[in-house]
Amino acid sequence: MNNFIFQCSTKMIFGKGQEHVVGEELKRQGASNVLFVYGGHSIRRTGLYDKVVRSLKDAGIAFTELPGVVPNPRVSLVRKAIEICREKKVDFLLAVGGGSVIDTCKAASYGVFYQGDIWDLISHKVELQGDMQHLPVGDILTLPAAGSEESDSCMISDEELKIKSGFGAPGMRPVFSIMDPELTYTLPVYQTGCGCIDIMSHVMERYFSHTEDTEMEDRMAEAILKTVIDNFEIVLKEPENYGARSEIMLCGTWAQNDMIGSGKEQDWFNHGLEHEISGLYDIAHGAGLAITFPHWMEFCAKDKQCQPKLLQYAERVWGLSPDYLHPEKTISKAAGNLRTAALKAGLPTTLSAANIGTGKFEYIADRMTDGGKKIAGNFHRFTKEDILVLLEAMK
Amino acid sequence: MNNFIFQCSTKMIFGKGQEHVVGEELKRQGASNVLFVYGGHSIRRTGLYDKVVRSLKDAGIAFTELPGVVPNPRVSLVRKAIEICREKKVDFLLAVGGGSVIDTCKAASYGVFYQGDIWDLISHKVELQGDMQHLPVGDILTLPAAGSEESDSCMISDEELKIKSGFGAPGMRPVFSIMDPELTYTLPVYQTGCGCIDIMSHVMERYFSHTEDTEMEDRMAEAILKTVIDNFEIVLKEPENYGARSEIMLCGTWAQNDMIGSGKEQDWFNHGLEHEISGLYDIAHGAGLAITFPHWMEFCAKDKQCQPKLLQYAERVWGLSPDYLHPEKTISKAAGNLRTAALKAGLPTTLSAANIGTGKFEYIADRMTDGGKKIAGNFHRFTKEDILVLLEAMK
Repeated sequence: MNNFIFQCSTKMIFGKGQEHVVGEELKRQGASNVLFVYGGHSIRRTGLYDKVVRSLKDAGIAFTELPGVVPNPRVSLVRKAIEICREKKVDFLLAVGGGSVIDTCKAASYGVFYQGDIWDLISHKVELQGDMQHLPVGDILTLPAAGSEESDSCMISDEELKIKSGFGAPGMRPVFSIMDPELTYTLPVYQTGCGCIDIMSHVMERYFSHTEDTEMEDRMAEAILKTVIDNFEIVLKEPENYGARSEIMLCGTWAQNDMIGSGKEQDWFNHGLEHEISGLYDIAHGAGLAITFPHWMEFCAKDKQCQPKLLQYAERVWGLSPDYLHPEKTISKAAGNLRTAALKAGLPTTLSAANIGTGKFEYIADRMTDGGKKIAGNFHRFTKEDILVLLEAMK
Repeated sequence: MNNFIFQCSTKMIFGKGQEHVVGEELKRQGASNVLFVYGGHSIRRTGLYDKVVRSLKDAGIAFTELPGVVPNPRVSLVRKAIEICREKKVDFLLAVGGGSVIDTCKAASYGVFYQGDIWDLISHKVELQGDMQHLPVGDILTLPAAGSEESDSCMISDEELKIKSGFGAPGMRPVFSIMDPELTYTLPVYQTGCGCIDIMSHVMERYFSHTEDTEMEDRMAEAILKTVIDNFEIVLKEPENYGARSEIMLCGTWAQNDMIGSGKEQDWFNHGLEHEISGLYDIAHGAGLAITFPHWMEFCAKDKQCQPKLLQYAERVWGLSPDYLHPEKTISKAAGNLRTAALKAGLPTTLSAANIGTGKFEYIADRMTDGGKKIAGNFHRFTKEDILVLLEAMK
């Protein structure tokens, strides 16, 4: 186990009907003038919008609304949020939605105090010095997937440059997160599937590591993976099963607050690759990961150094009996099980199923390896040529 | 899953040599005048005392020392700590040691601002109103066991009344905890064993619950239990195995910061019973739990409502193949395995092995049930008569 520092101060307010406390909680946190950020019509359709507005008014919280966040959230809206925060002297950002809405708020919360353009920080043109001044962010989560409700980072797209990039800081974790599993009852099967694949991917990016003596984190990672798998099956049949929706919501948070990654070298190759793909083609993040991760496993199965951990995953997470003489066969079965789960929710598992052609393979491999000069990933260390082979397999 | 609020803001600074940063961290937290609390000679013998003093001096932190904390920490020393804090205008309490030292600091940190005697709060004669004013506490952990390094409560003994009692508040969690597994290399086998049993007990008090839809917490609990069991075996043979000591230290924290108990009805019967025993007989907490927990399991094995979860524990934690026709046999094997682990470290598993007679059985059963008027425990609901039967089995 490597040395590490872990601190996650987010106050998790979990359970039925908890969205009603948002006004009181904001008051407790010292907020008086809030920017209320959300996506589109869905929170109006479900009645959540009215509940939030009522709770804010009852608590005497002034607020300005900023709707319009889209999946793969755009820097243009972040800029707009920053502008409003400065103009209206906003003292707190409230995100009501999923990771895209929370990430928009996180980026804006730092941008308010940064004199240049926020894309400088997002794209690492300018690195954060220490933990720079920022506004607090709180959220009401409606989509368990990104884990942004407790994570210390955010991911934003420049829709013109067609690039996704992310930045983070210890102070970026939301101060509170209200998590009512009932708010996820209306999620379509496809979005539920994307969320579950995203959650599993956050776990697997940390799980597949060569750091030794990480038994507790490994077993906790397996705990989250097994729980997502079990409960995903349930919500496919019963979208309003409170217990199953609760499990998935809780897993989404613990998958990404980095507790299970503490003291480990992490990988993040699949996220890097998927961000390139969704930056170019604007597909859902979870859908992109459903394409990349099983293929990545099958690629890594040929690497003798990667086989033991992949076998452990196949056995402990999917309950497969390992074929020790031909580990790649067992690993391929595990990859296949992940693919089957994604297919059940209608997700693509090949690039062509997502209407993505082969035209940008060179571009993607170049960007991931700085034109072939760098290695991508830690678990298996990918050269540019490896990435081209992997992309070919994903066609 | 029940509604819940979870927040744990403790900054965990984990790894080799991290005790050197204590002075800098205290400065970062705004401390300038510290009460440095510890136990006896062991931190001098190991050189930790010198390291701490050097780090405090290098950071320009003024400090007053208070040694003398003993296992089952005493309210008399808490009173002394409060006196010094007031007299010297201390602004931060630094605990260097295990749970007893940290608990002493936690109780004192609230006592400083309470006008009456601190035992009022500890014994719940006066209940805390909201989160009352208190000094911050930080620690350097030397004994993984109590989990006090991130928990929001403390447990103190009145050595004259021969009673142990505890109190807690959301603000009681330490602001930082420095955890260097190397500091635990010198722990004797007996203390290591007591620590591991204590850690496992913290997990099991939360695990054995009838709340439904808690798959993630259950599997995480199993993850911690398996990790402790595996690594306890290693440190018995190799006390200086860094990896194994790391795993146990990390498990101790996650067992007790209440993440795995979130949203569940918890039990705490064994802790209640053990506190009665160690209040009377001043035995180590882990040793007391090694006596109570396996017997408690065997008692609960007769309760049909308790059998499914106990079987799950036997199978998932100890790898036993369940005898579905005679579940109590499998549960008894699991209880036996826990007992065997305790015996390997020289812990008692019966009252007589700890030189404890039968004279106080009635007194204990009365205290736990308010003279037979109340039920104790949730998982199996114990009457006074049940407790007397259980104590007889422990003889």
